[in-house]
Amino acid sequence: MKKLVVQKFGGSSVATAEKIMNIAKRIAQEEKKGNNLVVVVSAMGKTTDSLVQLANEVNPHPSKREMDMLLSTGEQISIALLAMALHRLKVNAVSLTGMQVGIQTDSAHTKAKILHIKTNKIFDLLRKNHIVIVAGFQGVDKNLNITTLGRGGSDTTAVALAAALKADTCEIYTDVEGVYTADPRMVPESRKLDIITYDEMLEMASLGAKVLHSRSVVIAKKYNTKLVVKTSFYNIPGTIIVKEYKNMEDLLITGVTSKMDEAKITICGVPDTPGIAAKIFKALAEEDINVNMIVQSASRKGINDISFTISQSDIKDANNILQNLMKDVKAKDLNFDKNIGVVSIVGMGMASHPGIAQKMFETLGKHGVNIQMISTSEIKISCVIERSKVKMAMQKLHQSFGLDKVGKKILKGIKK
Amino acid sequence: MKKLVVQKFGGSSVATAEKIMNIAKRIAQEEKKGNNLVVVVSAMGKTTDSLVQLANEVNPHPSKREMDMLLSTGEQISIALLAMALHRLKVNAVSLTGMQVGIQTDSAHTKAKILHIKTNKIFDLLRKNHIVIVAGFQGVDKNLNITTLGRGGSDTTAVALAAALKADTCEIYTDVEGVYTADPRMVPESRKLDIITYDEMLEMASLGAKVLHSRSVVIAKKYNTKLVVKTSFYNIPGTIIVKEYKNMEDLLITGVTSKMDEAKITICGVPDTPGIAAKIFKALAEEDINVNMIVQSASRKGINDISFTISQSDIKDANNILQNLMKDVKAKDLNFDKNIGVVSIVGMGMASHPGIAQKMFETLGKHGVNIQMISTSEIKISCVIERSKVKMAMQKLHQSFGLDKVGKKILKGIKK
Repeated sequence: MKKLVVQKFGGSSVATAEKIMNIAKRIAQEEKKGNNLVVVVSAMGKTTDSLVQLANEVNPHPSKREMDMLLSTGEQISIALLAMALHRLKVNAVSLTGMQVGIQTDSAHTKAKILHIKTNKIFDLLRKNHIVIVAGFQGVDKNLNITTLGRGGSDTTAVALAAALKADTCEIYTDVEGVYTADPRMVPESRKLDIITYDEMLEMASLGAKVLHSRSVVIAKKYNTKLVVKTSFYNIPGTIIVKEYKNMEDLLITGVTSKMDEAKITICGVPDTPGIAAKIFKALAEEDINVNMIVQSASRKGINDISFTISQSDIKDANNILQNLMKDVKAKDLNFDKNIGVVSIVGMGMASHPGIAQKMFETLGKHGVNIQMISTSEIKISCVIERSKVKMAMQKLHQSFGLDKVGKKILKGIKK
Repeated sequence: MKKLVVQKFGGSSVATAEKIMNIAKRIAQEEKKGNNLVVVVSAMGKTTDSLVQLANEVNPHPSKREMDMLLSTGEQISIALLAMALHRLKVNAVSLTGMQVGIQTDSAHTKAKILHIKTNKIFDLLRKNHIVIVAGFQGVDKNLNITTLGRGGSDTTAVALAAALKADTCEIYTDVEGVYTADPRMVPESRKLDIITYDEMLEMASLGAKVLHSRSVVIAKKYNTKLVVKTSFYNIPGTIIVKEYKNMEDLLITGVTSKMDEAKITICGVPDTPGIAAKIFKALAEEDINVNMIVQSASRKGINDISFTISQSDIKDANNILQNLMKDVKAKDLNFDKNIGVVSIVGMGMASHPGIAQKMFETLGKHGVNIQMISTSEIKISCVIERSKVKMAMQKLHQSFGLDKVGKKILKGIKK
């Protein structure tokens, strides 16, 4: 039986006419293998940015419905051009917008959620030996309004399509070679992982690894869709993301990640009374401010310190809210610290191997890194540390967990 | 009762963010009059050209379906931006693509014909006091493929919408002030007409007046839709196009037009046998070559000369066809003459006033213009003349029919 493969190409892979031709050649090769192919593409390179700029010139606060109408043209342009490029290579291909496929979403413009995907049109075209090219990032609500899916939208389209079509694989092509043990710009010794679990990938994504948006991983996990992340620039294997795998590499941890866009807030001297924390975090949630790590110090003499991290872009709003709240919660002081970073280790091995946390803290201590906050889950440990030490800390952790030792051969012979 | 007005703005009216804001202000003023408004817009300025260029980089012979997918994004961008601009002025507005309206066409991609327009969505939105902004130039076939309407497409959308919605008026905004007695670049004394009939406008359009595509006039005539052509740059009356009007200006003719993109072909020495002309014009029609004027000279000694005009862009194809045919029709010689122009006079007055043709020929003769071919209809007379004399001929005809004498006051006080 023919395999069904969904392939997704991001904006940098289709940024110019020449790059589109290259992608078309790659797709044509894949087609020769006899697989059924559904291809999802993003908007060309900077198209979305220039459309956003145009909108801002006309209206600094454009309506979200009209933004979706505007931005969805970006993907419509790429799918048409990619179909033309495939035709030039004598390959049957047809492009479809989100509306034409029937990618049905809710009406939350600019961040819509997919409710259902119609598959009949795509299956019809596949049966007629067409490659089906689908516009990423977009859908349509029940009133035929065009919607967009927000951040990570095209990945989400690809994975949701793969799930709906029960595809054998969903391949996400990007400008990196796969998922790395750490960001190579931070840790030069980092190496590409051959395989990783959905859960590990989810932690990695939410802790700063930008290769895949966690939203698409959630869908892949839910429908058990085999995901592959690989580069569109060379023909080498990428990283496979699956439910579980034999721990071939006997690794305790899978990766080290960092986040540099967070700030730490400490509310000092809050009375140890029930309901205080709830009051603070409710006020922040009501203004859509996302709180990441939360640490409450052990109470001394009935007085608590509450620390948490938020995105740096929310500092101003958070300050307004918290200043108003200070009196109400009888707090003594309010501190903002932008000079922090979050360094995390992620890995399924953690669940079965004791002593991982200890090893992490020892490594940081040995190199003079003071830990300001700690947060853990079953498969990750995150520490807030001084920003200037994040890079060094990542390198030391990478080394002490032996992440640089396996699989170097995979990268041999590949020129950047 | 509220009036329903359809307004159409061309690409030059929405070429920049600033121009879109200007159009939005004009529409907002119109809305204050209490009319229901449906607005049709074209793609911004040079958007279509750059999309075509992009397509050609990917594939020199792009599929027409994918061209429609690509080009239809141009109008989708303008409608979204115009809606945003209106929102900024606190005006309710919503944009709709051809697909969202339900502008149903046949499947002749790049030159589709409108079959039917659904009106329920537009009427719903109008009832909710929205201005409805519709993407011009595009529709959708029965399989939900996006189609485009080809040349004059946005005008066609506007007039067809006005007809379907039974609008009171369809206003076509353009970069000229209305329909002129002649192209002002050719005849400086030309003046704007206050009113003109569908039939006159049709002849003017097909004889070279570029202000309105004849296709939209045909629809307006069929549904008796009142059309107004006016400029989007100032607030002055344009030209009204209707079925008939009282000849307020007592004009014999309405306008003088010219065409410079034609070539004359003469097939000399063809035997005067039945079926020869049919053979020639069938061969041309089969290759989609449009023949405009046809003149067959009176037979002398059983031998005919057949002359006709075609578009200059078809010369090469026509030559191939006719060279092959020469022997078959026993022709003696084949002449191509690119050095010609067609000058025409148009007017309903012609039907009731004798002597118009004579006056035209006299005027041309008096100024040394040799007439090579003549073609007439009930409301127009066209002459093929030497190209270098077209401009002068137009000016003399304009003058001798008194076209410069009436209505000058209309243009007073208007600065270009």
